[in-house]
Amino acid sequence: MVDHERVASVGLRSKIMSAEGAAALVASGTTIGMSGFTGSGYPKAVPLALASRIEREHAAGNPFRVRVWTGASTGPELDGALAKANGIEFRLPYNSDPIAREKINRGEMEYFDMHLSQVAPMAWQGFLGPLDTAVIEVTAVRPDGSLVPSSSVGNNKTWLDRAQQVIIEVNSWQNAALEGMHDIYYGTALPPHRVPIPLLRPDDRIGEPCLRCDPDKIVAIVETCVPDRNLPFASPDAVAHAIAGHLLEFFRHEVSKGRLPASLLPLQSGVGNIANAVLGGLLDGPFEDMTAYTEVIQDGMLDMLVSGKLRMASATAFSLGPDAAARLNADMPHFRDKIILRPQEISNHPELIRRLGCLAMNGMIEADIYGNVNSTHIMGSRIQNGIGGSGDFARNAYVSIFVAHSIAKDGRISAIVPQASHVDHITQDVQVVVTEQGLADLRGLSPKQRAETIIRNCAHPDYRPALADYFRRAREHSYGQQSPSLLNEALSWHQRYVETGTMRS
Amino acid sequence: MVDHERVASVGLRSKIMSAEGAAALVASGTTIGMSGFTGSGYPKAVPLALASRIEREHAAGNPFRVRVWTGASTGPELDGALAKANGIEFRLPYNSDPIAREKINRGEMEYFDMHLSQVAPMAWQGFLGPLDTAVIEVTAVRPDGSLVPSSSVGNNKTWLDRAQQVIIEVNSWQNAALEGMHDIYYGTALPPHRVPIPLLRPDDRIGEPCLRCDPDKIVAIVETCVPDRNLPFASPDAVAHAIAGHLLEFFRHEVSKGRLPASLLPLQSGVGNIANAVLGGLLDGPFEDMTAYTEVIQDGMLDMLVSGKLRMASATAFSLGPDAAARLNADMPHFRDKIILRPQEISNHPELIRRLGCLAMNGMIEADIYGNVNSTHIMGSRIQNGIGGSGDFARNAYVSIFVAHSIAKDGRISAIVPQASHVDHITQDVQVVVTEQGLADLRGLSPKQRAETIIRNCAHPDYRPALADYFRRAREHSYGQQSPSLLNEALSWHQRYVETGTMRS
Repeated sequence: MVDHERVASVGLRSKIMSAEGAAALVASGTTIGMSGFTGSGYPKAVPLALASRIEREHAAGNPFRVRVWTGASTGPELDGALAKANGIEFRLPYNSDPIAREKINRGEMEYFDMHLSQVAPMAWQGFLGPLDTAVIEVTAVRPDGSLVPSSSVGNNKTWLDRAQQVIIEVNSWQNAALEGMHDIYYGTALPPHRVPIPLLRPDDRIGEPCLRCDPDKIVAIVETCVPDRNLPFASPDAVAHAIAGHLLEFFRHEVSKGRLPASLLPLQSGVGNIANAVLGGLLDGPFEDMTAYTEVIQDGMLDMLVSGKLRMASATAFSLGPDAAARLNADMPHFRDKIILRPQEISNHPELIRRLGCLAMNGMIEADIYGNVNSTHIMGSRIQNGIGGSGDFARNAYVSIFVAHSIAKDGRISAIVPQASHVDHITQDVQVVVTEQGLADLRGLSPKQRAETIIRNCAHPDYRPALADYFRRAREHSYGQQSPSLLNEALSWHQRYVETGTMRS
Repeated sequence: MVDHERVASVGLRSKIMSAEGAAALVASGTTIGMSGFTGSGYPKAVPLALASRIEREHAAGNPFRVRVWTGASTGPELDGALAKANGIEFRLPYNSDPIAREKINRGEMEYFDMHLSQVAPMAWQGFLGPLDTAVIEVTAVRPDGSLVPSSSVGNNKTWLDRAQQVIIEVNSWQNAALEGMHDIYYGTALPPHRVPIPLLRPDDRIGEPCLRCDPDKIVAIVETCVPDRNLPFASPDAVAHAIAGHLLEFFRHEVSKGRLPASLLPLQSGVGNIANAVLGGLLDGPFEDMTAYTEVIQDGMLDMLVSGKLRMASATAFSLGPDAAARLNADMPHFRDKIILRPQEISNHPELIRRLGCLAMNGMIEADIYGNVNSTHIMGSRIQNGIGGSGDFARNAYVSIFVAHSIAKDGRISAIVPQASHVDHITQDVQVVVTEQGLADLRGLSPKQRAETIIRNCAHPDYRPALADYFRRAREHSYGQQSPSLLNEALSWHQRYVETGTMRS
C-alpha cells in the first residue's frame, strides 16, 4: 500500500502525479538515466507507462524510441516492457532481460556493454551526449528534499547530477529502515581534479546516507508500492557444490602457505547459483570475521551475515530471491549495521579493488586452454548479459577466479575450448579457473603450462582427449610456440555447435 | 672509464670484485631479479660473465639454467647473452631481445608475459617463489650504503627487498648527476595494509631519491663503465606523420568541445617510431604546459622538454637513441628538474593512471573490426614482445588510443582483421584506433557501429572491401547480432598468411 508520508518535503508534494503524467514528460529521441542494478531499485511505474505510450504512438504511426542508461540489469517493467514496445534505440551498460537480449541479438537494438565502474565517469566526460531525464526509484523524500536511496544505488548520484529533468518514484514497498544503510560519496571529479578515495576498509563510510537533488529539476514524483524483481535462485546442485569445494580447498591452502590472512581478504562474488554455492561453502568453512567488497548482495551473503562468519558487506545493490528479500525486510535495522550500499563507481572502483585486495569470483561462458575468458558472447557473437563489473574486479583482484560448469546443454557444449570465441578477460587477468572437475592455479605459469593445467584439471572427461590432442598438434604445427594454435581449427568447435547443435565431433 | 669514487661506502668497498667472481655466486636453478627497463639501467657485466659460465658448464655436460625476472626489456648483454647460452629456463615480465624471442617461439624458453604494474606486488604475494639473487645496476653507492638508481628504476626496490643476496653493478658511464632525479616510494604493502598512494600530480614527489639496501645482503659489487643499449630510432616516416596528424586533430577537437583541458592531460606514450612522431607533432602543435605520466622517456619527449611544451615527465626509465642519450647526459642537471623516475609499480599503477586521467597512446599488431586489440602475438601464437604496461594504461586511461600502420610486410598483412588472432585489449579498453588512413573514435558506440567506423576510417583501401564484405555477410549469417562473426572465416586471413605469405586472397 502506498505510504503518502514517504514524500516528507512539503515543497515537493505538488509534483506528485500519475505514472502516465510523468511518462508524458519524456520525449522521443532523448536519453533517460534510470535507476536499477541486478533487478533491484529500478523504477517500476514510469517505464511501464512510457512503454504504453510508445505502443500508442507506434500504433498511430509515430516513431518513438529512447536511449536508456541504467546501473546494470533492471526488471520486466523496465527493460522488458520498453524492449517489447520497440522503444529502446540504444542501451548501456548491462542487460539481462530476455526480451531486450533477443532484440539485441536480432540486431534491432544497439547495446554498449561497459565496465560498470566506468559508466559514471564516462557520462561526466561528455562524449556519451547529454542526459535528458533521470527516472530514479527512492525509498523516501526527506523534509529537506534529499532522497533516501532504494535497494540499489548504481549510477543514481550521477543521473541526478547530470539530468536536465528528474522524475522520482517513491516506492513504499521498500523498507523505510533502509535509511542509513547507504554511503553516497560526493568526492569524485574529472581529472585533473581527482583525489585519492579515502576508503581503507570495506566498512569505511566516506560519504552521506542520502542522495542530493536540485528540487528545481524534479518535474514529477510518482508514488508506487511494488516489490523488486526478486527472482528465486535455484538451489545449488552437485556441480555447484563441487566447485565450491575446490575453491574452499584453494583458500585453505593459501592460508596455510601464509599467502592469505585467516579471515581471507574482501570477497567479491558474481551472481548466480554457483556463486551462491561458494558462499554456502564459506558458511560451513573454517574462515571467520570475513568481509565482502562486491557489487551485489545475494542470498548466500545474507546467510553469511546472519551466521556472523561475514562481519560486513559492501556492495551497490541487492539481488535476492523472494525468501531472502522477506528475511532482509523483516530485520532491516539489524542488517543496516552490517551492510553498506555505495555508488557503483565506488563499489567497482579499480583503485579500491586493488587497495583492498579483493578475492574476485566470477562466472564465465567459456575459457580457452590458455585461460582467456569469454563472459559475454555465446559462440562469439550472441550477447548473453554483458561484462558487468567482472573486468573491474578481475584485473585488480588479489586473486582473480573464474568458475563454470565444465559442460553446458547436456554436454553438447564444452566450457573449455581451444580458443575463446570472444575475449573479455585476458590470460593476465585470469589466475584461477574452477569447474566441477577441479581447480587450475595458473599463477606464474607460461601459456603452455597454463594449457596443460587447464586441460588436466578443468576440462570435462568427454572433451579432455580432444583438447589434449589439439594442444599436442598445435605444439607441432603452430606458427609460434608462445601460445600454440591451429588457426583453421581454433574456432571449429563453435562452428560445429552452430551447424550441428553440439561441439562433439 | 671506471670511476672508483662511485662506491663511497667504505664498508662496502671490500665487496668489489670481478664480474666473473660475482657470477660464480649464482647457482643453477635459482631465480635472479635483474634491473633493466626498455634497454636502460640493466646490468651489463655480471649477466655476460654468467652466460660465459653457463656455456662452460654446458660444454662440460652440466645443466645450468636460471629463472630471470627484470623490469621490462634489457639489452644484448643480458637477455641476448643468456638466451644464446641456453641459460634461461623461465622469463618474466617482458622481453624484446631477438635471440630470447626466437627461443620462446621455438618452445625452448617459458615466458610469463605480465602487466608491468603487477610484477612487484605479485613477487610479494609469494606464489612466484623465492627470489635468490638481485643483480642491480646503480649509478653510485653513497657513503651510507644507499644506492643511487641508474637510468631505469623498474622493479629494483622490490628485487633488493626480496632477494636473499644482492649483486650491485656500479656503472660510471651513467651520469653522476642522475642523483636526485628518482623518487622511490616505500609506502606499498600487501592487503589488508594498503593505503592510498599520495600522488595527485605527475610532478609530485612522494618518496626518496635513493634505493635502500641491507648491506649484509650485498655479496658483490662490480664496477663497470658501459653505455645503455641506446638503439637509434628510425626517423618518423610519412605513415607516422599521418597518424600523428590524425591524433593531433582529435586532441584539438576534444579541447574545442571542452572535453580536454587546453594543456591536455598527462600523456602516456608507448615506444617506437610512431610514438616519436606523435610526440614530434605535439612539439609543433598548439598545446602548452603539458605533462607526461608514462613508462618511458624517449627521444621525442626529450625534445618536448627542451622546447618547454612539456613542463615535466614522470616515467620509470629512459629509452633513448644515442644522440638523445648524449644530449641528456650533457645537460643532466637541467633535465633532473623536469624528469622523475619512479618504480614501475608506481609509474604504471592503475590507481594513479585513473586518478590523473592519462591520455594513453600505444602501438598494436592488429585490431579487429570491433576494436579488440592484439599487442603481443603475431598470427595468434608467435610472441613479439609482450603486453608491457599497455593494459595498465589502456583500461584506466581518460582516453585509450591504439595506433598502427594499416598494413605491414609491404601490404601482405592488414592491421585491421575480421577477428583478432589474440586479444590483449578488449573492446571496452580501446576507445580510439588510428592508422595513417584515419582515426576511429569508438567511444559510446555499439560493436556494429564500431565495425563500420573502423572499416571506413582505419582499414587500408586494399583490404577495406574485403572487410566490408565480411561484415555484411556476418550481419546476414552470424549466430548472434551483437558482434556478428563468421566462425569459419574469422581467422582465415591469418591462416592464409601462414600458408601463402599474404593475407590477400
